[in-house]
Amino acid sequence: MRLRLTPRDTTYYDLFAALAQHNVTGAGLLAELLGADKAERRSIAERFVEVEHEADDATHAIMRRLNQTFVTPFDRDDIYGLASALDDCMDSMEEAADLIVLYKVDALPARVSEVVQVLQRCAELTADAMPRLRSMEKLADYWVEINRLENQGDKLHRKLVAELFDETTDAIQLIKLKEIVDVLEDACDAFERVANMVETVALKES
Amino acid sequence: MRLRLTPRDTTYYDLFAALAQHNVTGAGLLAELLGADKAERRSIAERFVEVEHEADDATHAIMRRLNQTFVTPFDRDDIYGLASALDDCMDSMEEAADLIVLYKVDALPARVSEVVQVLQRCAELTADAMPRLRSMEKLADYWVEINRLENQGDKLHRKLVAELFDETTDAIQLIKLKEIVDVLEDACDAFERVANMVETVALKES
Amino acid sequence: MRLRLTPRDTTYYDLFAALAQHNVTGAGLLAELLGADKAERRSIAERFVEVEHEADDATHAIMRRLNQTFVTPFDRDDIYGLASALDDCMDSMEEAADLIVLYKVDALPARVSEVVQVLQRCAELTADAMPRLRSMEKLADYWVEINRLENQGDKLHRKLVAELFDETTDAIQLIKLKEIVDVLEDACDAFERVANMVETVALKES
Repeated sequence: MRLRLTPRDTTYYDLFAALAQHNVTGAGLLAELLGADKAERRSIAERFVEVEHEADDATHAIMRRLNQTFVTPFDRDDIYGLASALDDCMDSMEEAADLIVLYKVDALPARVSEVVQVLQRCAELTADAMPRLRSMEKLADYWVEINRLENQGDKLHRKLVAELFDETTDAIQLIKLKEIVDVLEDACDAFERVANMVETVALKES
Repeated sequence: MRLRLTPRDTTYYDLFAALAQHNVTGAGLLAELLGADKAERRSIAERFVEVEHEADDATHAIMRRLNQTFVTPFDRDDIYGLASALDDCMDSMEEAADLIVLYKVDALPARVSEVVQVLQRCAELTADAMPRLRSMEKLADYWVEINRLENQGDKLHRKLVAELFDETTDAIQLIKLKEIVDVLEDACDAFERVANMVETVALKES
Repeated sequence: MRLRLTPRDTTYYDLFAALAQHNVTGAGLLAELLGADKAERRSIAERFVEVEHEADDATHAIMRRLNQTFVTPFDRDDIYGLASALDDCMDSMEEAADLIVLYKVDALPARVSEVVQVLQRCAELTADAMPRLRSMEKLADYWVEINRLENQGDKLHRKLVAELFDETTDAIQLIKLKEIVDVLEDACDAFERVANMVETVALKES
């Protein structure tokens, strides 16, 4: 358990905010990885594994609290769902980083950076929104914008896949790049699931 | 929100029936797509995107109603699960249609039409069954038949995959066709999940 | 319904134990399959289909009981989750066996046996742990060890994938082997999900 917060000073809101902040760090490492040469990549990937462990700890802290307390600020299922969805964002981003290193990919298509920028923006907006769960106010802008970003990410993904099939003649290279690109799309979807969970919670409480 | 029904005249049963009807339209478009030449394909795929949006709206209408009302005709979790499963059918069918266009596939194996016929039959039986949720009667025939169809779809899928590997020498072509065929199998599975949810609900109420 | 136990003598604990025992049989068949020649493979795969059906029946028996009784030994959602997770282990193991036969794979990388050994160990530990759900005692060792094994399985999987990409020049062969190896990793993940469910249940009850 690497998370510094002691049970006394944490609340679900603090834990969600910590988890969302790990996703900002993760999305930043992913952007760093794209600009790195092969020597730097391994150390970035190692830092990523650490961040993912911290996010796991934060998720477990939420689950443990959920299993051991009766009073929760909103529906137990929604707390569980929100924590899981935030954790899925991290898992997909870490998987993409891991595949880039594991597959020893030389150059990624330029458009991949655009997808990672979308992920960075999603991560920041999500981290900004978490503290507002306390009041349940001013959250609609957040989920509308995430849905717009996911849509943009989806369009980028489709273009990327079409380009890969048009331009890659080496099937093994294609398998590698397609898997990386698909996992980045999974990360976009995971941020959308977080936004959908927040919308659900906000609607129930309103 | 494109769905015409106003909150006043809708019930969960009407919303489920509308959602299931969208799947009938979707399965029909998929069949149309298989027979179409490349020029027609794009317009069919565009109509598919529209149908998928309408299905999304119908799903959201169910979720919103669920979040804002206390009294539900059966378990909240089952309403949520049934709506999600119906939406998954549409998502997989739309994804298959989208991949056929995106991958510019010239000719699909003949057996693909047989799988799409299974999907059309699943969609029709599901749409027929939804109104019977009101009385919870005469539903067993439906779920038994869907399970039989899913089994048939699964056998067709296995044959298709074996044939693809036996007959395709171009690995990139294989990657495209296998993904399409796998997504069609996901659609069959989604119809089975709908039937399983209906069985669960009917057993609880009996 | 092939399961012999009549409703009278079953309890959820017995049903979970039966389901977990099917996974032990399944993991054993998978190990047998790796050592078999092509003539033997088909009959092993057929026995696997039977075991999977028995596991399905055991899962359905749990679900039916859940839908028809009010009193459950622990949270309904957790009973449902535990049964689903146990069933997922079987599904992934059966899928791997099926792909090995369907793809007519000549030789699997040596490291695949190591992964299957991890699965066998997971299946045995899980079957051993199920009866202890009754007292909820001495379960921590089980879930700690499964988490360790899943970690080991994950490392083996990464090595396997890296080796496949380094050593396979035939892209179609690569597609086949990678899918098998990925499905085996799904099976490891499913055993971890079972352990996580058990941990959740034990923490709630403590």
